[in-house]
Amino acid sequence: MLNTLPLKGMNDYFPDDQRKTDYILEKISAAAHSFAYEKYDAPVLEPVELFSAKSSVELVNEQSYNFTDKGGRHLILRPEMTPSMARMMARVIKEKPKPLRWYSFPNCYRYERPQKGRLREFRQINFDLVGTNSIYADAEMISLLRSVFSNFGASENTYSIRFNDRRLINSLLGAHGFNAEQSILFFSTVDKKGKMPDADYNEYIREKHDGQAEFVLKYLQADSISAISELAGTNATAEFSQAADKCREFISAVNRLGINNLVFSPSTVRGLDYYTGIVFEIFAESAGPARALCGGGRYDNLLGLFSGENLSGTGFGMGVYILGLFLEENGLLPDFSEKTASEKSAFCFFTEPGLASLTAAAAAQMRLNGWAVEFEPEAGKIPKMLGKAQKKGYKFCLLLGPDEEKKQCIVLKNLENGENREIKVTQVH
Amino acid sequence: MLNTLPLKGMNDYFPDDQRKTDYILEKISAAAHSFAYEKYDAPVLEPVELFSAKSSVELVNEQSYNFTDKGGRHLILRPEMTPSMARMMARVIKEKPKPLRWYSFPNCYRYERPQKGRLREFRQINFDLVGTNSIYADAEMISLLRSVFSNFGASENTYSIRFNDRRLINSLLGAHGFNAEQSILFFSTVDKKGKMPDADYNEYIREKHDGQAEFVLKYLQADSISAISELAGTNATAEFSQAADKCREFISAVNRLGINNLVFSPSTVRGLDYYTGIVFEIFAESAGPARALCGGGRYDNLLGLFSGENLSGTGFGMGVYILGLFLEENGLLPDFSEKTASEKSAFCFFTEPGLASLTAAAAAQMRLNGWAVEFEPEAGKIPKMLGKAQKKGYKFCLLLGPDEEKKQCIVLKNLENGENREIKVTQVH
Repeated sequence: MLNTLPLKGMNDYFPDDQRKTDYILEKISAAAHSFAYEKYDAPVLEPVELFSAKSSVELVNEQSYNFTDKGGRHLILRPEMTPSMARMMARVIKEKPKPLRWYSFPNCYRYERPQKGRLREFRQINFDLVGTNSIYADAEMISLLRSVFSNFGASENTYSIRFNDRRLINSLLGAHGFNAEQSILFFSTVDKKGKMPDADYNEYIREKHDGQAEFVLKYLQADSISAISELAGTNATAEFSQAADKCREFISAVNRLGINNLVFSPSTVRGLDYYTGIVFEIFAESAGPARALCGGGRYDNLLGLFSGENLSGTGFGMGVYILGLFLEENGLLPDFSEKTASEKSAFCFFTEPGLASLTAAAAAQMRLNGWAVEFEPEAGKIPKMLGKAQKKGYKFCLLLGPDEEKKQCIVLKNLENGENREIKVTQVH
Repeated sequence: MLNTLPLKGMNDYFPDDQRKTDYILEKISAAAHSFAYEKYDAPVLEPVELFSAKSSVELVNEQSYNFTDKGGRHLILRPEMTPSMARMMARVIKEKPKPLRWYSFPNCYRYERPQKGRLREFRQINFDLVGTNSIYADAEMISLLRSVFSNFGASENTYSIRFNDRRLINSLLGAHGFNAEQSILFFSTVDKKGKMPDADYNEYIREKHDGQAEFVLKYLQADSISAISELAGTNATAEFSQAADKCREFISAVNRLGINNLVFSPSTVRGLDYYTGIVFEIFAESAGPARALCGGGRYDNLLGLFSGENLSGTGFGMGVYILGLFLEENGLLPDFSEKTASEKSAFCFFTEPGLASLTAAAAAQMRLNGWAVEFEPEAGKIPKMLGKAQKKGYKFCLLLGPDEEKKQCIVLKNLENGENREIKVTQVH
């Protein structure tokens, strides 16, 4: 006998689960519409080279599904959407008025040890705004995310928006004598903050950073642009000052939108190689474990991989599954275990086998009049069928017995107040 | 420089293409709702065994993407949805009131030579009704498909519904002395009818079927249940007569629904191994090449692979791409090349860099009032911006210049009649 379970780390989506996914994606689509983003999609399979170029080596070699097809092509099941988006943007951006606003709901794949919050097949939400380096494009990402969370009824105190700026930090590190290798180490150790106990973490930093450990630990205390500027001190370059000014402009633009949960976060540096400017994460704050719900940022050199022409963009990705966990923990999801029948929907049955054909025709007629009709294809006794309809959450039944056959009609029964209405069965065209 | 094209045989879906897909899937969803079907989804990756059991060997070994993952599992990118549906049904059907009605829009994958109408990644539409062997379930599939085509405005003369019955044909063949091997050959040669010139085809049948060729050619002329019954003649078994009666009941049930393009088709036998009863195809008839748009049928032994308990079901699959070609050929699709801005949507801009923050706040405020707002993140002169808005199909602009800043308002401009309205900018929360 065959196994009924899906592959380890992958989910089946039964109608209950699918209703939840659809509910979430509808709210996201509403936000997309409200900000004039357009939906796109790309193939799940891509050549490996597309991801080797700018995603991390670890992601491509160790954490992805990749294989050689019958034609000898080395393929990957996309672990993220951004490289496919950049590839597609490069195909069309020259002929379009800029900037372009795109969103997508791709399935992505990672070969990781399955655990709560991590799946091997997962649905992502991706938004990108490409063709402008205005700080107001970065601010729009935050505004859009606020709309998304508001649409679900999540108040500002249930999550924080943590940001940082790659350009700011790179120039800070440069001014403090970090070479390229030390900078890469810095981003990887800083990213581990909060993922181990504080005492262990400080130990870890001292071990990894040797002569620069005190600087790194001080950096991690710097929770504002002023604190970072103080840290830069007299070493601050022109590039640093410019980046700091942009960050202040960004904060002020976001605050002007009535958003008060934006915080500068020294440890928010993002793992992917392609970020070059402001990076951000949404962090769950109120219920459940503290976790990043969403991450994104600005990339300047991604489209240049395809066209030689660099066009700056910003965007974010958010996992539907993680977002669902957050919404559940905060009591922000309806109950999807029972489908709620819409107002104009009915359970339709007949009491004797010979009445099937007439009843099916009546069901077709009701559908043409805008009703959703579930047709029971086998005859059944009235009490049993009414019970089945009620159990399925229906407010209305359509029933046909020998009396109705004589009159060539069907009875529309309101299960709440018992009212019956006879409807003439005519020929459907 | 990296290639911008997707893999051979796979499509990128730019916003224009995506709007078309979404338009098609919305119409299908409306039909699903109207017949009380519930949406589900399964992982794209499955163990190969799931498909080896009941799909054709050719499909699994030669026409699919399959590979061994890092954990040594032999996986397949699903070439069709039915086995995953059956696996999932088997997990839950015992606890649910039967029958179950499910639909899905899965991406499926085939490693085939790409050609018009055939892609290596393709979106499918799948419907299944499981847990009843009533002929009215088979009739519901046809009723549902009629609704789908009507929803698109396709009249009955643009397509035909061709059907046959595996049980009927199997008992016909048995009565005429076909052994198992000869029956398999029969289904494969009969399936080739219409795929080569008639003269060549008759030659081909004579070559393949030797002593039975005349019977096969006569069979292919039998275009009604009566003609098939005549062919069976005195050899007709009780099983044959029963199947013929069921077919007549099916035709009558479908006709009673006002559907007049159902025809018995001797060559419609369907390639997949799991069909056991009525099988059907929708055939494009009016414009473009004659091709099957959709195929399906009844399967009795599919769920038994998982649970030992056999539950009969019926269902169909339809390719979104093929359906799209048919609709285009019949002039039944709107123009998706330009997005049509909805009534309450506006292009929002400012004339001087210093006004960005106030304008962004005004845009956020308008969105809270139900407007879709596209925000231009860089300052621009009024005529240029109005032109851009018009080119993008907007009826309204929101514009903010120095005068508006003084009054802390934004102007809502109707591009069709030139009317301006000032809206006060307040603090967004």
